[in-house]
Formats: sequence, structure tokens, C-alpha cells
Amino acid sequence: MLDANRLFPADPTTRAIAVRLYETVRDLPIVSPHGHTDPRWFAENKPFPNPAALFLQPDHYIFRMLYSQGVSLESLGIPQADGGEQAGQTGQNHPNDPREAWRIFAKHYYLFRGTPTRLWLDYSLSTLFGLTERLRAENADEYYDTIARKLATPEFLPRALYERFGIEALATTDAATDTLEYHRAIQTSGWKGRVIPTFRPDAVVDAEFPGFQENLKKLGEVSGEDISTWKGYLKALRSRRAFFKQNGATATDHGHASARTADLPVTECERLYARVTTGKMEAGDAELFRAQMLTEMAGMSVEDGLVMQLHPGSVRNYNPQVLAKFGRDKGADIPATTEYVHALRPLLSKYGNEPDFLLILFTLDETVYSRELAPLAGHYPSVKLGPPWWFNDSPEGMMRFREMATETAGFYNTVGFNDDTRAFLSIPARHDVARRVDCSFLARLVAEHRLDEDEAFEVAQDLTVNLVRKAYKLA
Amino acid sequence: MLDANRLFPADPTTRAIAVRLYETVRDLPIVSPHGHTDPRWFAENKPFPNPAALFLQPDHYIFRMLYSQGVSLESLGIPQADGGEQAGQTGQNHPNDPREAWRIFAKHYYLFRGTPTRLWLDYSLSTLFGLTERLRAENADEYYDTIARKLATPEFLPRALYERFGIEALATTDAATDTLEYHRAIQTSGWKGRVIPTFRPDAVVDAEFPGFQENLKKLGEVSGEDISTWKGYLKALRSRRAFFKQNGATATDHGHASARTADLPVTECERLYARVTTGKMEAGDAELFRAQMLTEMAGMSVEDGLVMQLHPGSVRNYNPQVLAKFGRDKGADIPATTEYVHALRPLLSKYGNEPDFLLILFTLDETVYSRELAPLAGHYPSVKLGPPWWFNDSPEGMMRFREMATETAGFYNTVGFNDDTRAFLSIPARHDVARRVDCSFLARLVAEHRLDEDEAFEVAQDLTVNLVRKAYKLA
Amino acid sequence: MLDANRLFPADPTTRAIAVRLYETVRDLPIVSPHGHTDPRWFAENKPFPNPAALFLQPDHYIFRMLYSQGVSLESLGIPQADGGEQAGQTGQNHPNDPREAWRIFAKHYYLFRGTPTRLWLDYSLSTLFGLTERLRAENADEYYDTIARKLATPEFLPRALYERFGIEALATTDAATDTLEYHRAIQTSGWKGRVIPTFRPDAVVDAEFPGFQENLKKLGEVSGEDISTWKGYLKALRSRRAFFKQNGATATDHGHASARTADLPVTECERLYARVTTGKMEAGDAELFRAQMLTEMAGMSVEDGLVMQLHPGSVRNYNPQVLAKFGRDKGADIPATTEYVHALRPLLSKYGNEPDFLLILFTLDETVYSRELAPLAGHYPSVKLGPPWWFNDSPEGMMRFREMATETAGFYNTVGFNDDTRAFLSIPARHDVARRVDCSFLARLVAEHRLDEDEAFEVAQDLTVNLVRKAYKLA
Repeated sequence: MLDANRLFPADPTTRAIAVRLYETVRDLPIVSPHGHTDPRWFAENKPFPNPAALFLQPDHYIFRMLYSQGVSLESLGIPQADGGEQAGQTGQNHPNDPREAWRIFAKHYYLFRGTPTRLWLDYSLSTLFGLTERLRAENADEYYDTIARKLATPEFLPRALYERFGIEALATTDAATDTLEYHRAIQTSGWKGRVIPTFRPDAVVDAEFPGFQENLKKLGEVSGEDISTWKGYLKALRSRRAFFKQNGATATDHGHASARTADLPVTECERLYARVTTGKMEAGDAELFRAQMLTEMAGMSVEDGLVMQLHPGSVRNYNPQVLAKFGRDKGADIPATTEYVHALRPLLSKYGNEPDFLLILFTLDETVYSRELAPLAGHYPSVKLGPPWWFNDSPEGMMRFREMATETAGFYNTVGFNDDTRAFLSIPARHDVARRVDCSFLARLVAEHRLDEDEAFEVAQDLTVNLVRKAYKLA
Repeated sequence: MLDANRLFPADPTTRAIAVRLYETVRDLPIVSPHGHTDPRWFAENKPFPNPAALFLQPDHYIFRMLYSQGVSLESLGIPQADGGEQAGQTGQNHPNDPREAWRIFAKHYYLFRGTPTRLWLDYSLSTLFGLTERLRAENADEYYDTIARKLATPEFLPRALYERFGIEALATTDAATDTLEYHRAIQTSGWKGRVIPTFRPDAVVDAEFPGFQENLKKLGEVSGEDISTWKGYLKALRSRRAFFKQNGATATDHGHASARTADLPVTECERLYARVTTGKMEAGDAELFRAQMLTEMAGMSVEDGLVMQLHPGSVRNYNPQVLAKFGRDKGADIPATTEYVHALRPLLSKYGNEPDFLLILFTLDETVYSRELAPLAGHYPSVKLGPPWWFNDSPEGMMRFREMATETAGFYNTVGFNDDTRAFLSIPARHDVARRVDCSFLARLVAEHRLDEDEAFEVAQDLTVNLVRKAYKLA
Repeated sequence: MLDANRLFPADPTTRAIAVRLYETVRDLPIVSPHGHTDPRWFAENKPFPNPAALFLQPDHYIFRMLYSQGVSLESLGIPQADGGEQAGQTGQNHPNDPREAWRIFAKHYYLFRGTPTRLWLDYSLSTLFGLTERLRAENADEYYDTIARKLATPEFLPRALYERFGIEALATTDAATDTLEYHRAIQTSGWKGRVIPTFRPDAVVDAEFPGFQENLKKLGEVSGEDISTWKGYLKALRSRRAFFKQNGATATDHGHASARTADLPVTECERLYARVTTGKMEAGDAELFRAQMLTEMAGMSVEDGLVMQLHPGSVRNYNPQVLAKFGRDKGADIPATTEYVHALRPLLSKYGNEPDFLLILFTLDETVYSRELAPLAGHYPSVKLGPPWWFNDSPEGMMRFREMATETAGFYNTVGFNDDTRAFLSIPARHDVARRVDCSFLARLVAEHRLDEDEAFEVAQDLTVNLVRKAYKLA
């Protein structure tokens, strides 16, 4: 199922170069500076429950595709917002039967032809479980049983897998108010894995975030600061950043509707803060407050050295019926046009030339690679380009990124790969795909005599481990 | 002139796979679910008049290119809006001499190098007329005579060509008020060809359409409904849809300036309808009415099962001088940026999860393939992606579509190929190009071990006939 | 260092065709119709000062990349706006020591891996100076000395290089108020090189241009017209255009923030002109005045036959700190989304069908190639597509242009290559890259049987010399 030459260009000359390059990076450690795995797994080190819970239910790449072809989310055992599915009732489709969900998945496996999901799954099934035939209705039960059996063994406990995957560092994404109890448990456990938190303050800087006022209240409590004033609010955020940093964090992350930033005078900030915290928001206030907060976060990064990541441009929870029934983050996020040049100007005009500041930019809008992001990264010392994100995190998407960004930004204004996943088993698969695509791109440059081969070997190392360690301060 | 390997990648491994795939789809029937051929041709089955009338004058791909290089539309015999050219006067360039128009075309044939028009023409000239040299000034007359001679033979009558092309079904595009007399004549003629209408209501839902008030009046007459009220207007549209369906239609089509939709309360709809029908339109009313009507049409599709196609984003009749002299649709349509995510939200929030609703989305703005359309189609059960349209209906354009859409939407949220042409003779050529490009894309996936070869054979069949039959309910 | 097959596709069949094509265009003359070299070089014909002044300091492609990686502009000897660096003081990094700047550059040469800068530099170093090893810290001094030594020889004087490069015509870019003294000196010198000016009126048509009022005053002086009235102002511009034409100019060039055009009644123009010239500008006036002036310039082109070039969409001097310290044009220009279809409609509706008018459109926003520019050029007799500009002026960028524009606009609505450089030594390198990329594109069309090989040879000639000579009236 897994050909040794998969993802390499068919041209024999180019492929041979790609193979040579890949051999030197295939077994390098995995540095995973941004993702959504659960620190609890590593703190508790308990077995993963079953194949459906491991592969299907946390992976919106999978269930969105099935949903798009008429498979109900109930039948896949996706928990309902009111706890319906989790409470155990079963219906016609045996919604809570993970084996039945797995069968549905197997029967529809052909839908993933040509998608990265297919590559990731084949890799995981084959490499981890020795399952080397294509998944299909006929072998669904056999596969389910094999996976379930292995998950119960010590070799498949979270920490064992972490080690087997060769992970050097793994960052999670955590709310600003999080107690980081699992991260602290990992640290004090004596286990040598490096699982670190990332400071993600969306819920306390976005006045349109569900429960914003309660989130602020919680922020005040965990920080012990008075969040009723702008000054106290900023102090609370500083305090939480320090707490995260103390517990291993090297970065923050910001998921915003747009990349808009602002740089308002303090008195205007105070008035704006008063409006958003007292329910007197005017039109545009939420957007302006998010914009101002990005600049505030940048300023704090200049102070404390946490690397700043920006993930803008997703229209979250686009489908109201899916949101109502299944809650947030159920595959109904849709990208929209995202503008960076005018949007980032206030922030960059203030902090863009700071020598120790690093802002890593992501996008769901590929049109900005060559037009906006590469020119910004190719000028500002503080700006670097994050790897292709989400829907673009695929062989074609990653290749387009290199083709569109490299000529203006070079390789050295990029930061290596992010797997950005909540599907733990897919991590090695995703890094393997990224390494193969990068080596294919480099191989083409070499085959076309645009880069010397000895340089390509250096760049392959840089793209795999050196740039990510340096950018995210994980060296 | 026609190499057997045309359009296949040069790499020998990949080409060999493409050839194997193509051999299995080359001779499959042509299913043409959307286009602009004239049903009268098949109803009357008379000979096509002459080479210029067949190849040049109906094909805006051809005369727009010639016009862009200084060839006058008069010299090509393009009819003038006031009937000037059709009335028979001849000028310096013998505007009404089809042979002279053909000579001008032949002399400028080099302009089409690298364009799909060239591929389509070479295919038609060679396959249908046995003309295997490149068209040029020197052989223009010989070619003209050969084509004219053949057009007079029974083998070149419209029905004979339909059969020779292996067409399984051919949809035309028809105004909502059309009597469908030619479609009915075909049905009652005993001929077994399947030429079906498509319900296209632009002229009665777009208050900025020329003659809108008269069109509405005509709608009232043909439907026998009272179109003076919102309720009666909707009833008239329902009635026409039923009439189309009864005469074989399986789909509707909507050509709008934007993809904007709306979901207004009934009382607002009534007031808006009153304004647009009584000449009291306010700024934005026309756009809002079109937006509301898309949602109404979707609702009717949920009721009657007609598949809904949306073709937004063309700035029609951009060149005022060409419009004034030659009328609408004379090659001066220019695409513009088209937004889908925010625009479609009202419609999708209402009907997006309906199990029996299908909305096929087209675009002239390629940037939306990976950013907006593939994520929408990869989530909503009701959304599928139409093939590349118009300027993108070309080898590079079709390949970009597969490269940008497949990884997120998969193959199974697409609907096969549309030739979308008014140039009847180009239909087999266009389908052949699409099949070759799809096989080339699949061959690359196989050569790069991203898809198993046995799967590629299945997908090739699906892309050629199965997906289109299913999506357009033509099975 | 320079492989004979560089930039050609790796596939042996395709490469062989590319080589055959390239051999027929490699040694054709260089026609450079748009760029930013200094006419003074050719008027005075003095030696270039030193390697840093020749390669680094005028080339924002180079110093922007170095700056993005933390190298200070001071250390590279970039002159400061207040004349600081030029006045001769040296600091810790020996800012005024060109050798030291060169060393810094050599040490960071790896940053340019995968960028066109690297290709251009390798070509120049190797071809002109016989320096065939990769530049690095260790050979920096040797390279500096070799280059410096050669620059002092007669073979490296500007005119000798012009001849050695095989330049047929070289256009500079000059302010509307320029005296063209160096161009006139060249003409009267007896030297046979053709160095011609281009009329660039940005500073006198953009009311937001620094020193606009003074620029206008100067315009009045050099033209001898009364610029206090709209009529006198237009007369002054006509007079300057005539002066440029008389001194060899065949084209104008317009660098605007957007592509917006307007077609206001004369009375509105008069009022608008009064506002922008008397410091009573209202919001939107500057943009509207620029828009109107593009249409005025088009009208004058219809009269005097000067070809009109439009370069819109750059956000100039984006970084306020760099602007304050180093002045304009220091690598901090960032592209932004640029719309053409609605923007150009007023101008094209007025002059788009004029038989002797030519408007060459450039873009920094690649999304418009297939969506807007190719359809416009494929319809309007007056519109042609400029080659990839600035950040897109690279192997991948040039290939994307051909792939996205050719199928709709054809080859014959394009105008050949522009080097658009102020780095004189890079001119042959840039043209060589363009020729190789075009031959690679053509070779793929031939290998895929989309174009006959004999036609490809013709097109290669056309793309290299014929189209540019014709479009820019340089035949």
C-alpha cells in the first residue's frame, strides 16, 4: 500500500535526487510546535479507547467529507452538543456503536481518493498496525479488531507512541485561563517527553467569543488581577503569559476572523475596553478590540519573548444547524478572503523592526503567499511564514506554498512544518508527507540546476528541524 | 495534426498510465448536461449553412481573439444589433461573404496557438472533415469548400452528428418563458436523441435585465398566473418549472452578477417585489432581489427536485461600443472577483442540509477553488463543484481545478464535465480534452503513488459518465 | 556554477525541445523597453565605483532579503535620507566600507537559495567576471578584488557593457519634468547605443506624491505653460510628452496605487484640479484625480502615439521607520490586492476600441492573470499584457504567467519581456532567465502535442524580439 517512492515526482532524474535528499531527513526527530493534541493523554498515559474514537471522531477532515456525501454525523458517533450521543442512546444506525461507525467509514473510504486524509490513514494503518491492504467494507471488522487489540497493549500507550514517533517536542494549544494541570503533571512525572503549552487567548480577547464575560471573570480569578480596568486586564494577560512561559510555553497563538490590527491611544483603549466589558458594544467594536489586542499581544511578545502565531481568516461554525446540534468545531469552518497588508500595518509599524520579535503568519487564502506574505516576510526581520495550514496542508498545497513563497521570501523566512492536528496517530504521517514534498521541491530545483545539490541537503535539514527549532525557540 | 498522445504528460511512466486510463474512457457516451446549442437544429434537422456560420459567428472564443488583434467584427460577419449585417449590405471587407470571413480567420489562425480554441478546431477539422493540415491562408479556400460540401450531406445533419458524436443526453439553456416548442417537436418526432431544456429564469428574476417588465408580463401570460403580486409571481415560476420538468428538464441554471443570496421575511419580499415591478427601485434593490430569488429558487428545487446550477461573476457586455453596435453576448464579458462564503450563507443556512437538494457551483474566479468552493463542497451534502467554466475550460484551467479542489473536496463532490458551448461541432473535441486532462491528472497521482492504479480506472469512469449522470439525474 | 541546461524541465524529451528552441533565441539582441538604469552612466561613460555600489546598494531585491534576516541597512552602506551614510562617517560595522558590505553579503549568500536574485548574480559573476565558484565568506575578498579590478578596465565601462550585452534599445524611466540632459548628451555624443527616455508623470499627477505642489510649479517652468488652470496643466503635460517623444521616447509609464480610472466632465475636472492644487483636497480627491489623469493620459496617447504602461498595486514605503531613516524605495514596498475590471472601465469605455492606442497592463497580483487581465487583453484591441513584474519576475512567476494567461489571451496579446531593473549588470541574466522559461513553456506545449514544433520556433522569436519591438514601437 505504501510505495517507498510515494509523493516523489515521476521523472527518474528528479525522483533519484528526491530519494537521496529524503533519506537524510526521513529519520530526523519530529518537532511539532503547533497542534491540538490533548496533554491529558500524556499526563495519564491511558490506552486510547477504540478505533472510531481514535481515528474518526476527533478528525474533522474525515467526518466533514463523510457528511458532504450524506453520511449523518450521528451515525459516526459525533457527540451532540446537548450530550445526546454521549449519553448512550442508540438509534437505527447504532450511533454509539464505534464498530458500526468504523464500518460506515470503511465503506466510504473511496471518498478520500486524492486527499491527504487517505495518505495519512494509509500510513498510520500500515506503519503502526501492519494493516497493508486498502481499507474497505470487507476488511472493516478485521481492521477494527486488529487496531482495538493493539491499542490495549503497552506499546500503544500515549507516551510509548510519543517515543516511537521520535518526537522531540510537542506543543499543545491551551486557553489563557487553563490551569495547565496536565502539563505540570507531565513535568513532575519524571517522563522525559517534552509536551509544552501554547498561550491561546482568543476566548478572552474576542468579545464575540461565546461566554466572553465569564471568560474574563475567570481570567481575573486565575490571575488574581482586577480585570475591571484596561490596565488590570493587561496585567492579567501578562501574568498568564508568564505562567505559561514558566510551564514551558515558547509561543502564543491567535485565531482571529481577520488579520486586522490597530494601534489606538491608551485613552481610546480604555473606553473601548469599557464598552466591550459592559455590554455596551457598538458596531465594529468587537473587530476593533480584537485588532487592538493583536498589537497588545505583539507588545507583550517583545517584552517576554514568546513567539507570536496568527491564524486568521476562518469563518467558524458556518453551518447553523450543525452548530446547534453538535456544537463548535465540527467541520463547518470555511475559509474566506483574508487581507494582510493593510490589516497588519498598525502592528508592524509599531513592532515590525524589533530585533527579538517574531510573528509567524498563517493563511487559508493561498492568493496571499506571493502577493502579500512572501513580500512581508522578505522585508521585515520580525515576520516569518508559517507552513500551509488546514485545507492547504496537503501535497499540492505544500508544493504551491514553496513555489509561490520561496522566490520572494527564500527558505530562511519560513519556519518548517506544523502538523496542527488533534489526530495523534497522524503526526508521523503528516511530517512524512511534508518531508517528501519538500524534498520533491528541492529535487526539482536541483534537477533544473537552480540549486546545487550540496545546498539542497543543507536546506532539507533546515526545513525539517533547524528552522522550526530556531523560530519556536525549541533548540 | 492530432497526435494520439496529445495533452498527456511527457514523462514516459506517467504518459503510459494516462494512455491506459484514457483508452477506457475515450469511447464512453457524451453526457452534456449544460450548454447553449439550439434545440431548433434537432427539431428541424436542416443542414448547417456554411463554415463561417458554423464555426466563427456563434463562437465568441474565436471572434473575441480576432477582435483583440484588430480584426473588425463586421469583417467576420457578426450580425449587428440593428440588423445591419443581416440585411445584406456589403462593404469594403465583404462583411456578408462567409468565405471572406473564413479567409480572415484562416490568415489569423496563428493567434490561437496555445489556446483551447486551437485544440477544439484542429480536432473538429481533422476528425469530422478529414482536414489534417494546419489551417492557414493558403488552404483557406480548399478547407471552406470541403466543409461546405460535407455540410450539405446527410451525414452532417444535426441529428446524424448527434448520433455520430455518441451523445447520450444534451441539455440546452432556455428562458423561463420559452414555449419549448422545439423540444416538444423533438420528443414527438420519434427521433431517439435526448435533447432536454434547462430552466434559466435570469430574465424574469433580474430587475436589471433588459426588458424585465415585459419579461414579467410574458411570464404571466405563459403561466396564466397573476404576476402582480409576490405570491402570484412565485406561483408563475413554479408553474414554469413544472412545465420544463414535464418536458424533460432536470435542472435550472442561474447566471448572476454575484453569488449573493438573501433570506428575507415574506413581508419584505412583498415590498421588494412591489418596488422592482413598479419602477420604484431603490439603490441595492436589484441586487437584493436577485439574492432573494436565488434562495426562492433553491426552495423550489427542494420541492420539485430540479438540480440548481449557479454561474456567477461575469461582468456582461463590458464594452459599451460593442454592445451598442452588435448587441449582447459578443465576447465582451469579463470575469470579476467573486465571493461565495458570505454570499451563499443565507441560502445554505436555510437549505444546505436538505438531503435531496443539489446546488452546483461554478466560478470564473479560480482563487475560490481551494479557499471557498472545495471547503463548501467538502462539507455540505447539497453542494457540489461544477467543472471549470468559460475562460478556465482549458487544459491548464482544468488541471488547476483538479489540483486545487481535489484534496479538500475529493472527486466525489464534483460532477463531471460541461462543454457549455454553442459551437455544436466542438462538443466531442471539448469532452475529449476533458477526458485527456482528467486521465493525465489521475496518471500523475498513480505515478506518484498517491492513488492505486485500479482505483484510478474507477475514478476515470466516474469523472466521465457516472458523476454527471447522478448529479444531473440523467441516469 | 552555470549549467547549460539550467531552468529547463528535467524530462529528457521536453528538455531536448527546450534546448533546441533556446539555441535559436539565446543570442538575439536584448530589447529593454522598461527599466530604471541611469542615463548618466551612458552619457558620461565613467567606471562603476566598486562591487558594493554596483551590486548591493541599488538592488532592493538584495538588501530587503538581508534586512529580513536581521542585517542592518547601515551595515550594507545604504545611504540615509539625511545623507548620513553618504557623508562618510563610519560606525562599528564600517558602514561606508564597501568591502565590508560585500563581506556581509557573501556571508549571507545562502539566503538567496531558490530566489531569482541568486540566478542573476551567479550569471553575472560567472559570465562577466569569470567567477565560477559559489560566493561565500571565504572567497568574498577575492571576488571583491577581481570585480573591482575589472570595473576599472575599459571593457567594463557602461557603453562597452551595453554593446557586449547585445542591447538593441534600452529605455529609462524619467520624471515628467526631467530635462533629459543625459539622453540628449548620449544622442549628440556620436555613440550608436539607443538609450531612450520614458515619460513617467506620477510626481505631477498624484496629489499625494511628496512635493506635489513644487513638482507642478516645476512642470509649469519647464513647459512654459500656465499650470494654474486645468487647461494649462493639460497643455503643459502635452508639451512634456512632445519633448520626450522628440528625444526618443516611445512610451509613458504610470505607477499608481490602484488601477482606478475616471471619466469626468470637464467642469468637474476643473473643480477637482482647483481643489488638489490649492490645498483644499477633500477625502477621495487624490484617488479621483489620479483616476481622471489616467484617462487623460490615455487620451493623449491616442493623440501622440506614445504607448501607455500601467504599473498599479504597490503599497509604497510601507515601513515608516525605514522610510524615515533611509527614504523612499528602500525595499519596503508591498503588493496589495488590485482590481482591474471595474477600475479600468471608464478609460476602456472611452478609448478601448481606438485602433492606434496601446495600454500595457502590469500587475503584482497574480490572481488577475486568468480572471481579469487575460480576458481584457483577449478582447480589447488596445490592451496587451505586460510580463510578470517585480516579485513575480522569477522562473516560477514567469511560468505561472504563461500558464494562466496564454489560454485566454494567446501569445500575441503579450509584449515580450521587461527586465525593469536598476541593476545594470543583471540585464543579460534577466533576459536569459526569461528566454529559458519561455522556451521551457513552449517545449512543454510541444512535448504534449499542444503546439507544433515549427510553430514553437516562431513563437520563441516573437516572445524574444518581435512582440516587444512592435508593442513598444522600437522596430
